[in-house]
Formats: sequence, structure tokens, C-alpha cells
Amino acid sequence: MNTNSIKDLLSGKQLLQEVTINGWVKTFRSNRFIALNDGSTIQNIQCVVDFEKLDENLLKQISTGAAIKVKGTLVESQGKGQSLEVQVSSLEVHGTADPETYPIQPKKHTLEFLREKAHLRVRTNTFSAVMRMRSALSFAVHQYFQQNGFFHVHTPIVTGSDAEGAGEIFKVSTLDSKNPPLTEDGDIDYSKDFFGKETNLTVSGQLEAETYAMGLGKVYTFGPTFRAENSNTSRHLAEFWMIEPEMAFYDLDANMDLAEDFIKSVLSYVLENCKDDLEFLEKRLLDEEKTKPVAERSEMPLIEKLKFITENNFKRVTYTEAIDILKNSKPNKKKKFKFPINEWGADLQSEHERFLVEKHFKCPVILFDYPAKIKAFYMRLNEDGKTVRAMDILFPGIGEIVGGSQREERLDVLLEKMKDLDIDEKELWWYTDLRKYGSAVHSGFGLGFERLVLFATGMGNIRDVIPFPRTPQNAEF
Amino acid sequence: MNTNSIKDLLSGKQLLQEVTINGWVKTFRSNRFIALNDGSTIQNIQCVVDFEKLDENLLKQISTGAAIKVKGTLVESQGKGQSLEVQVSSLEVHGTADPETYPIQPKKHTLEFLREKAHLRVRTNTFSAVMRMRSALSFAVHQYFQQNGFFHVHTPIVTGSDAEGAGEIFKVSTLDSKNPPLTEDGDIDYSKDFFGKETNLTVSGQLEAETYAMGLGKVYTFGPTFRAENSNTSRHLAEFWMIEPEMAFYDLDANMDLAEDFIKSVLSYVLENCKDDLEFLEKRLLDEEKTKPVAERSEMPLIEKLKFITENNFKRVTYTEAIDILKNSKPNKKKKFKFPINEWGADLQSEHERFLVEKHFKCPVILFDYPAKIKAFYMRLNEDGKTVRAMDILFPGIGEIVGGSQREERLDVLLEKMKDLDIDEKELWWYTDLRKYGSAVHSGFGLGFERLVLFATGMGNIRDVIPFPRTPQNAEF
Repeated sequence: MNTNSIKDLLSGKQLLQEVTINGWVKTFRSNRFIALNDGSTIQNIQCVVDFEKLDENLLKQISTGAAIKVKGTLVESQGKGQSLEVQVSSLEVHGTADPETYPIQPKKHTLEFLREKAHLRVRTNTFSAVMRMRSALSFAVHQYFQQNGFFHVHTPIVTGSDAEGAGEIFKVSTLDSKNPPLTEDGDIDYSKDFFGKETNLTVSGQLEAETYAMGLGKVYTFGPTFRAENSNTSRHLAEFWMIEPEMAFYDLDANMDLAEDFIKSVLSYVLENCKDDLEFLEKRLLDEEKTKPVAERSEMPLIEKLKFITENNFKRVTYTEAIDILKNSKPNKKKKFKFPINEWGADLQSEHERFLVEKHFKCPVILFDYPAKIKAFYMRLNEDGKTVRAMDILFPGIGEIVGGSQREERLDVLLEKMKDLDIDEKELWWYTDLRKYGSAVHSGFGLGFERLVLFATGMGNIRDVIPFPRTPQNAEF
Repeated sequence: MNTNSIKDLLSGKQLLQEVTINGWVKTFRSNRFIALNDGSTIQNIQCVVDFEKLDENLLKQISTGAAIKVKGTLVESQGKGQSLEVQVSSLEVHGTADPETYPIQPKKHTLEFLREKAHLRVRTNTFSAVMRMRSALSFAVHQYFQQNGFFHVHTPIVTGSDAEGAGEIFKVSTLDSKNPPLTEDGDIDYSKDFFGKETNLTVSGQLEAETYAMGLGKVYTFGPTFRAENSNTSRHLAEFWMIEPEMAFYDLDANMDLAEDFIKSVLSYVLENCKDDLEFLEKRLLDEEKTKPVAERSEMPLIEKLKFITENNFKRVTYTEAIDILKNSKPNKKKKFKFPINEWGADLQSEHERFLVEKHFKCPVILFDYPAKIKAFYMRLNEDGKTVRAMDILFPGIGEIVGGSQREERLDVLLEKMKDLDIDEKELWWYTDLRKYGSAVHSGFGLGFERLVLFATGMGNIRDVIPFPRTPQNAEF
């Protein structure tokens, strides 16, 4: 079954040679020109058949979506629109696609329609481009960390601790849900469950990753995380992939340096390696935005936007500075914010983040040193006693893409904080152990992978950048 | 916080320069020699302090496990056992590790003891070596596929279909388990659950990966999978990571070629990139096996064993040939097998697989063309009507490391098979769609990542090659 990928063929190295190609028919016109695609690239290869020599029954089977195998000679094309084509000498049909019922016809489908056909949508140009980009970004993540001395750690998916109190979690169980075993008090007897205790799906691998950073130095996780939030938005999924590096001996400044360098590096990777897909996606976005009012269109075409990120420094601003800017901003004074900014301590909403990034600074922004009260228990308290060494990276159009912090490495301060927040010390004995034995300054951050893919592909809905999205009321396929 | 990793320092490029190192004390002897490790390598760097110049209180804090920062000059070592050392000019303690309570003292700990301390065990030589190897293998997997034209696909973790009937699954829910909503019939009303239906953790991403192979051509998944089997063995985990490539237009032969090339390639990667860790693990294994009877020891040292795999062809044998060999084998005739082999059709047990690999062929074996009755519904039926295009790769000491097949691409044959096995066609409408529209020969396989790590590190228990193992009655951390 030795065949040539269309990507390889289009490089032209096999010009005038006999080639064998397997792929799916994109279009077939004039009983003569087959545009064939095999998924290796967004480009089709034109296959020219001599219909007078082909069996009529075979000819009938060649329609959009059919899988075929062609043999022929790779030659320079006489026609417009492509430089190379295959003069077909033989053709076989692997499998047909009845035009009456096959949903992916060569016409414009809405993204909503294609979500219902998530098992077939990767056969469209848009989704094949998005998913090749997703794959490239995923590899770029691994390559960046491995080349920079990080070790990949697989933190657990099923966990017994909801110590973070992140709230909306999915329970995992093998108990008979209709007739669960009960304790004498009438409670469910989780000692009889598979793991001998209540368990749930992880909301973050950070705490476990910290244990590994305190031995291997620099580590990262890249795995699925779960939130059972009933949010039906274009930016939330119940199941999403998260990248979480964790570094011993890194303070917040080093953490910010890393996050910025990391994002620039993975975006540079796709600019370099996914040119065809990016060009297609850029054109797609431009076409789509033509139907929108000018004010809602992107300020830059897709590729320019990515280059803008890789070529400019992120602006670093303290929370306190940001509050001043927001307090004195036009939309605040004119009461245009849904949540007006009146005082220091307010939690920033998406509208504020977008104002800072898109209107005020017009570049990615790293906000840091947030009020302790609006941030997680494990973030390091500053000397002022009221702010913590937290940082969020805000991106145009996306909002928060990274959330991170220097971690509280002082046992007494951490325990005090946990007590204040009613976090059970016994549940997190292993986490506090890290502060008892060989504790040190350390930091880390989390980046939601789908938000990165969303940004890099210019897509508008997070459900369109993951193969089979999980959202409230939806776990199809 | 710009510091040097010990791995970089030991390359010697900064000889005679001032360096700053952060790390954890492995040992401290004669009040003078600190063996310091930062996780970047299994090697420690010797830091020489002048105790007469150091504060006595500081000196007391330097014990195994303490995190410290040293500055000094990198020089050639006068002593034995290392080529370079650091003449320390200043020393700071980040965090102490009280020798009275710190569990990871410089002495031999059992692997069982360390499993109870899974949050600290990566600070030992054995586990740091294993986890660096795991990280390298994980990267080698991604690199292999990406360099060979595959796209990484993230198949869903929470799924609504247990169509495979793999059986032992974990349920995922947000319903109140004590008082779940009920339907009029008194059943649990899953329409009120988060996803609006019963959901569980995936047992395999294969079926979803197939949908992507039929658009992108060659894809792979690498994600967590789950089995709620009550198996307390050294080879089973309830949560493990699986690699599943899936390729359009690949028949079984091409599938076997790929699997063999893939395994050889990732093992070559660690032979090339993890020399120090492999040497350590080889020595560890030799030491451990000294306590065992000769017959139970490995036939080859670790590195030789890995090279044997990368340098030799896997033996390809049909199931039918294997049954003949087993029927006529000494252990079968002498009734030494727990499950005697009497006739064609028998399912092979671990004892049979090990006999074939370790005694008969003495090399990795690919068994193929299994009886249809003992294999999954989606495997392609051979023309004989009784065998399927399945293949398993068997490894010495590990048993089955890969299971794969050519997939049934013919709609009628697939539907017939599903009917026979009572698999609901409505549940798998999207899977059968792949056979309706542009169907083609395709194949794939699954490789349990932890079994690969087990093999490559020479460890004996699968719980020791994943950071936080999940097994019956155990979801700690």
C-alpha cells in the first residue's frame, strides 16, 4: 500500500513519475477533473481522467466524498489554479458517497450545522485546517518545553481531592446509582466505591505538578481538565485541555518571562509550519467578517495578528495601575461598563480586560499583583499583606489566556491562608509537605489549549476547535 | 533568577566561571562536600564549602532534602568520582528538611514504601530516572508521528457511548447521588444530568479517531483511558495513557510495519537521549535481581535488551501457526500450562504469549489473523469467514504491548457483526456513517504507554512508572 501523500506530491519532486494516490473526491467537473484531497494538506491535487476510457458505472461513482485510488503520471498543469496535476491511467473506487444523502456537499455549510456532523466535519476545508493547526500547536507545546529542559508529567485525571474548592466538579463512580450501598447513618458508603472514597474529575493538575517540580525542577502537564459549569458560551467547554508548567526556583518575573516566550514560540511555530492552513483561515475570516458591521471586524488579518504577538513585547501592568486606568476611563465615567469600577479590590470582568487590551494598550497585557481576596489560596502573599504574586495574560478577542502565580512557599503563611478559607489541612497533607521539606520559591501557570487554538485559527467558537466538544446537554459521539 | 542547570554545568562549558545553582541536597559529608541535585539530570554536582567561613546555624540546616542556592566557581575536581565541582563562595538555604521527619533519607527504601510517598518519591534517583525517561518517551511518540505525517487528535474523555461493550466503566455525573431525580418509572432521570444522558469515562479513543482518519488520513491520539476492572496486578491501572494511531488506506501489513517501526523509533530515541538514566536503571535492575534465583533474572541487561528490540525484526506469526506451536510444545504436553491448548479458537493467555516470545521465538512476536470470535466487532473479517485481520505485538516480560487491526470497512459486514453481538446500531450511527460515505481500507492500533515505560525502564510494577497511580481502593493525591 505504498502511496504518495498529496502534500509530498505538490512539492514537485516526483514530476513525470508514476504515482499512486488515495484520497477523497472534493469535486468532479466536466467528467474530467477530479479535485482530490487526502488530508495531508489543504491543497487538492487535480486528477485528469479520460472519461472515454473509463467504465460508465465507475464514472457515476465519482462524486464529492467518495474515496478513490488513482494511478497516473505527475505532470505540469496546463490549466489555471494549480501548477501540477496527475494524468490518470487507472482509477479504483474504495467507497462511494451518495450525493442524495452525504451531508458534506461542496457548498457553504453553517458551523452550527457542522457541529451536528462532528464525525464528518473534518472533511471540510475549514475543519481540516483548524485540526491540522491544533495538531501543530500541540506539538509546538511539547517541543518548546522539551527543548527548554522541562519534563512532561502526567498528573492524574481522577482525583480524590476537591481541596481547591473550584466548585463545579464531575463525580466519578462505579456504584449502582439506583441502589447505592449506604452507611449506618444513611449516607452513601463510598468506602465501597471503586477507589474506596469519593472521587471526581480533575479541575487542574497544578498541585500535583508542584510535587514534581520540587524534584525534577521544571515540569509541565498537558492533559484534559473538567468543569461542570453550566456556561453555554463561545469560550467555555466542560472538557478542555490545559497546559500547566511548574518551575522550582522561578519567581513571578521569571514566570512572566517564560509565559511570554512560550506563547511567542508556539505561535512562531505555526507561522512557520502551517502557512497554507493559515492563509486559508485568514481568507475564511475575512469572508465571514464581510457580513459584519465594520466596528465588529478584526483590526488585523489573521497572520498579521499572530505576527503582532510574536514581534511585540507584552505590556506588564500591576492590578493597581489597571484599576486606576479603568476608573478614569471613558466607558467607566460614561457608565458604559456593566460592572462599574469604583474601587481597588474589584474583580475584573471580561469587559474590563477587553478595554485594557483592545482599547487602551492595544497589545497583549500581563496584569500582576492582584488583591489576595480575589485569587486562589496557593498564591504567594506580597509584603504589603494584601496583594498576591498572581499574573493573568490578556489577549485581544480572547480575554484571559494564561493565569499563573508564584506559589506560596512559606508553610506558616500557607496554613494560615488555608485556615481562613476553610480548606482542610488533612486533605492537602501532601501539598503542605512540599513546604516542610526542601521548600523553595516556585511558580507556574495554566494555559487553556483551546483558547490558544481559537486565537491562532481565528475561529469564533471554542466548540469548533476541539474534535468532539463537551458542553451542557451535549456528549454526542 | 538566572541560574545554571546542573546538566548544563556538567557539560563543562562554564569551567572557571562564576555560577549560581539551585537544587536539593542529596548528601552532605565531612561538613564540606554537598552532593547537589536539581532534577535536570541524575548526576549530582559536588559543591565544596569552607565550613570555617560558614555560619554554624546555616551549616546545621544543610541536610538531605534541603533546598539551597550556591554561588561559586566551577573547577576541575581533585577528588574521585566526579570531574567537576563548585568551589562555593556563598550559600543560602531556601528550605530545610528536618532529618527526624523527612522520609526520603539517603538509604534504601522499598518501592512499596515510596508508593505511599508518591508526592516525594520523584526526589529519589530511581523515580527521577523513571520519570525523565517517561517524559522522553512521551516526546518521542509525538515526534515520531509528527515527522511521519500524522496529526494529533484529542478524542473525548467523557463519552456517551459504551457501544464497544468493553464493560467495566466509570460513570460520570453531576446528579445528587443521594437523591437523584427520577423518571415516572422510578428510574434515574439522566436527562437532568449535566450532559442530558448517561456518560462515562472513555475506554479507548479508537472509534472517534477513525472518524478523523477518514478526513485527515493519518492521525493519532495520546490520552488517558480508564478501566474499572478490579485487577490488582503489577500490569494494570484503572487510569492509564494510551497511544492510538489510525490510518486511512493502511491494510494490516502496513499497520504491522508502522507499529514495529514506531516502537523501534521511540526506543532508539531514549537510547540516544537518556544514557545516564538508562545506565542508572540498568544497574538498579542488576542489583535488584541479585537477590532473585538465577532463573528469574533478566536474560539481558536493560540497554542490551532495548538494543535487541531496535536491531532485530519482529517475528510475524499467524494465530493458527501459534496454536500449532503451542499444541506441540513441551509445557502443553507435560500439562504445565494452567490453560492447556487443545484446539484452534482458544484465547491465548499470558502464559502462552510468554512461552512464544521468551522460550520459542526469543524475540518480539506479532501474532495476526485471530479467530473472529475472540476479537472485537470492528475488526475486518478475512475471506475465510472465521478469522479477522487483528494483530497483537508480544514483548518479553511484558506480554501484549500493542493490539491492533485492519478495521471492517464494509457496511454490510459491519452491520451483520454488530447485530450478532447485540450492539445497538442507533448508538453508533456516526461510526457506521464512515462506511456509508467514502469508506476505505483503514487500520490502527493501541499501545498502552505505561507498558512501554515499564519495558524501557526495567521497572517491575506499573504503579512505579506513572506519577500518581489509580488502582482499586487507591486515588490518593
